[in-house]
Amino acid sequence: MEKKPIGLGVVGLGRAFTLMLPTFIQDERIRLVAAVDPQPGPRTQFEADFGGRVYDSVAALCGDPLVEAVYIASPHQYHAEHVALAASAGKAVLVEKPLAITLEDCTRIVEVAHEARVPIVVGHSHSFDGPVLHAARLIQSGTLGRPRMLHTMNYTDYLYRPRRPEELDTRQGGGVVFSQAAHQVDIVRLLLGGEATSVRAYTGCWDTTRPTEGAYMALVGFEGGAFASLTYSGFAHYDSDQLMGNISEMGEIKPLDAYGQSRARLASANADREAQLKAARNYGGSAYRPMSVSAGAYHQHFGPVIVSMDHADISLTPEGLWVCGDMQRELRPTPKCDVPRVEVVDELWASVREVRPPLHSAAWARANIEVCLAILESARTGKEVALTHQVKAGIVA
Amino acid sequence: MEKKPIGLGVVGLGRAFTLMLPTFIQDERIRLVAAVDPQPGPRTQFEADFGGRVYDSVAALCGDPLVEAVYIASPHQYHAEHVALAASAGKAVLVEKPLAITLEDCTRIVEVAHEARVPIVVGHSHSFDGPVLHAARLIQSGTLGRPRMLHTMNYTDYLYRPRRPEELDTRQGGGVVFSQAAHQVDIVRLLLGGEATSVRAYTGCWDTTRPTEGAYMALVGFEGGAFASLTYSGFAHYDSDQLMGNISEMGEIKPLDAYGQSRARLASANADREAQLKAARNYGGSAYRPMSVSAGAYHQHFGPVIVSMDHADISLTPEGLWVCGDMQRELRPTPKCDVPRVEVVDELWASVREVRPPLHSAAWARANIEVCLAILESARTGKEVALTHQVKAGIVA
Ligand SMILES: NC(=O)c1ccc[n+]([C@@H]2O[C@H](COP(=O)([O-])OP(=O)(O)OC[C@H]3O[C@@H](n4cnc5c(N)ncnc54)[C@H](O)[C@@H]3O)[C@@H](O)[C@H]2O)c1
Ligand SMILES: NC(=O)c1ccc[n+]([C@@H]2O[C@H](COP(=O)([O-])OP(=O)(O)OC[C@H]3O[C@@H](n4cnc5c(N)ncnc54)[C@H](O)[C@@H]3O)[C@@H](O)[C@H]2O)c1
Repeated sequence: MEKKPIGLGVVGLGRAFTLMLPTFIQDERIRLVAAVDPQPGPRTQFEADFGGRVYDSVAALCGDPLVEAVYIASPHQYHAEHVALAASAGKAVLVEKPLAITLEDCTRIVEVAHEARVPIVVGHSHSFDGPVLHAARLIQSGTLGRPRMLHTMNYTDYLYRPRRPEELDTRQGGGVVFSQAAHQVDIVRLLLGGEATSVRAYTGCWDTTRPTEGAYMALVGFEGGAFASLTYSGFAHYDSDQLMGNISEMGEIKPLDAYGQSRARLASANADREAQLKAARNYGGSAYRPMSVSAGAYHQHFGPVIVSMDHADISLTPEGLWVCGDMQRELRPTPKCDVPRVEVVDELWASVREVRPPLHSAAWARANIEVCLAILESARTGKEVALTHQVKAGIVA
Repeated sequence: MEKKPIGLGVVGLGRAFTLMLPTFIQDERIRLVAAVDPQPGPRTQFEADFGGRVYDSVAALCGDPLVEAVYIASPHQYHAEHVALAASAGKAVLVEKPLAITLEDCTRIVEVAHEARVPIVVGHSHSFDGPVLHAARLIQSGTLGRPRMLHTMNYTDYLYRPRRPEELDTRQGGGVVFSQAAHQVDIVRLLLGGEATSVRAYTGCWDTTRPTEGAYMALVGFEGGAFASLTYSGFAHYDSDQLMGNISEMGEIKPLDAYGQSRARLASANADREAQLKAARNYGGSAYRPMSVSAGAYHQHFGPVIVSMDHADISLTPEGLWVCGDMQRELRPTPKCDVPRVEVVDELWASVREVRPPLHSAAWARANIEVCLAILESARTGKEVALTHQVKAGIVA
């Protein structure tokens, strides 16, 4: 490798970090050098695992000269503040989705990044999945005509995984619209060119013990006339991974006897115990089990996606793309790297070391949040919601 | 059988009749006694096969005392006129979907049936499929809580099957909204209680050589707060039967080498030849091949349907229902009769011999058409369309 690795400081050693850790460990372009987290467990583990410096505050971490970029994986409500701290200290930023939970906070981040002239990459999100980028590249090539219609759905156990209290309170960014539509909208916008025009949606809050959105359906129109239908349910009943060859969101073969386990695990936990249960399974927690470091045979995914073009439908799978053309169909495998989520580091690296603008910029991610907020608004008002902060998708390398 | 079979007169010996024929042949409750069709081929065949009387006009057929009920399977645009003729002659009516292509014609039929006091059953449609009725029964039982959200999609080769010119002209009832949404909306309304409140939709007309709707997506809201997402594409690319265990709409195992055949067959046909091509494959045509008379192992279907209830998601398959509950999931097979589409005769029989009101009444079918028209209107105007002709679903026996 010609250039030295990026020294990464981590803000928030929780679930998101746990999921990105195999990437950071395996990808030689990243070195974990520092972290901040209010919890002692993950702090101690971080020092032990990486000899990294552990700080008491984000400001202090941003003062560390070894930290070249900051990965912000704290809860949603802190993203704007933490990005501002990192950017004004001149650090590059990788910030988890959702960028923030209000348009104002998103705009603050867009402006801060602009003024500080630091690159901001928003991710991981599942639009970094290999087959999504592969499909975007194929669509952008124009060989199959124009994209016309996109159908996507995902049925998971999202609502019954252990949660912090905020994650069950929509006003604090809880529910599947902020956490899961942020992925789905990102995928849809990337594949249909980015510029959504309006949204009509419904949301479902059907379990009074988990009083936030557990499901939604949305119809989204796009510049140029394309449109998309998005369905999500996190109610832990039907499982759409069965349509993906029983491969999980994380790209792993799903054990068939796992049915009902999310609800069973929660059954006896009250709100306090539930947050502990979540923390215990994260990095440095008492029930923490490291994920396997290298990627398996399959790509990660966010449920079935079918893009209808003039001359083919493209169906995304954990192996690649089924291209169903006018006269024949074929599976085009998406090449696979041994490092999971390597595409996130690719984009961070390109923007930090090669000064190329990221696909998943702050303005891009703000446009995702605008759609998410429109889903909530349309569901509340029963009306179509027009969009005004949309941006074009960049060219996928 | 205690009661004598229903003497059935057929109006239109085309594709719809070809598909219903195995049912009429096998079900002892039906006797084919008369027919009318402008084409000589099917007329001759009908006389030969059934010794039935063949008439020159619908009026003449309706004067036949052996005809107790009339099956109207003429093109959409004739349904209103033909129903009026049959009903005013005191005949029971089985009329194909769509009931008609304007609300005015539907209302005319509703009124004519009411005045003449004859039963009208609208079908076949895929809401007669065993698993759909099974699901409706389970939902109506209330044991799984309330239905909240329904997702359905269907990707077929509809647009590239041989067509009459009207079938490619929306003003004459062409396109997938009139012919295919009529099925899908019927299923969705039956499962969610019937009373849709409003529709937002997009349609796709992307092939200038087939200038009618080949695809649509719709979001439909219901009384009580449930909602549904409907996706349909007839562009012969992706094939959603692969999500149904490779079982076709007709309940048959689908040959894998059939891919691209619809387009290939059309490739050299101009508009005239195309209508001939359609007629040739129908009953009495030069390329007619009788369908197998008894039903195979699988139910007919109209693509994946998932209904989210409070305590389970119900996923429809060609074998029955996957009921994915809070703690476990199970396949509940839908009992299968040897006679295909027997449910259509069940309903006709119940309304003619047992004087029970049909589920698929004229008022019910008018409400389906209202939703179809709203799909077209919403796609044209970009607006939400409110509904005013909806009716409650009947109790599924
Ligand atoms: N892309 C993905 O696949 C993915 C997966 C999970 C979470 N996320 C995102 O990551 C973010 C965090 O969610 P999570 O599920 O990891 O939550 P979590 O509760 O598991 O982890 C959050 C961590 O941040 C720490 N923290 C809290 N306040 C902090 C502060 N002020 N400064 C520094 N650290 C602080 C907590 O102690 C905890 O360790 C969310 O925005 C979420 O949307 C993304
Ligand atoms: N439920 C289903 O599965 C299904 C399948 C196919 C068609 N359909 C419906 O059936 C109807 C007919 O469509 P099709 O595909 O069978 O068309 P088709 O062209 O194959 O058949 C129509 C038949 O009606 C005859 N006909 C035309 N004008 C007539 C008239 N004035 N009087 C009597 N007969 C007349 C034609 O000669 C032809 O034989 C449509 O409303 C369609 O939506 C339903």
